[in-house]
Amino acid sequence: MQKVNLMHKFSLFSEHWSPKVVGELNDQYVKLAKVKGEFVWHHHADEDELFLVIKGQLRMLFREPEGGRRQVVMEEGEFLIVPRGIEHKPIADEETHIMLLEPRSTLNTGTKRTRLTIDALEGI
Amino acid sequence: MQKVNLMHKFSLFSEHWSPKVVGELNDQYVKLAKVKGEFVWHHHADEDELFLVIKGQLRMLFREPEGGRRQVVMEEGEFLIVPRGIEHKPIADEETHIMLLEPRSTLNTGTKRTRLTIDALEGI
Repeated sequence: MQKVNLMHKFSLFSEHWSPKVVGELNDQYVKLAKVKGEFVWHHHADEDELFLVIKGQLRMLFREPEGGRRQVVMEEGEFLIVPRGIEHKPIADEETHIMLLEPRSTLNTGTKRTRLTIDALEGI
Repeated sequence: MQKVNLMHKFSLFSEHWSPKVVGELNDQYVKLAKVKGEFVWHHHADEDELFLVIKGQLRMLFREPEGGRRQVVMEEGEFLIVPRGIEHKPIADEETHIMLLEPRSTLNTGTKRTRLTIDALEGI
């Protein structure tokens, strides 16, 4: 049983959109990611996802059920839970550090495979 | 779908050892608590628990399987996962703000009932 220092973990990697596993509980992973630029539109069929901004700013775009789009802008110390089934697209205009919480089964690009899909999750 | 600002949520309550639900995902609750002083020794039979320090310092005491005791001191930006079954006792020498993640089924005092047990969870 060891504590995890978020700043230290973030110092161990630099690539974007490549979440690292830093903890596991109740079949969920705690992951850290550095993000910059636009990710792809995707959704997760059976998994809710939490995004907590540790540093920077994360914009989350959604497709609303009736077809419209909405954006939530998250600053440091703010989190958002994206429920299963909701199409979303994270964007960071500058490099941003986030903590994620989601089931172990979660694929980063949800129900579709793209060049950003990561199959082999890395722990740090 | 609304973002949650941790600082704002912490400004809405002042009592100690009384976690407030601020989010729910995958049958887990995200809770915020202000803590000060010593909590009781307890364990959770089936639930792993994550403690993230948002402000202050949290000391977590454990009873090791072979009977010894150990302490982990967590500062701001550090988290610890206490696996199910492990006897633990959180202590904060000064008021400390923490974020918790644990299954909805989790009782704050684990397998025992004390005057600190909270049955009706409050959302804020």
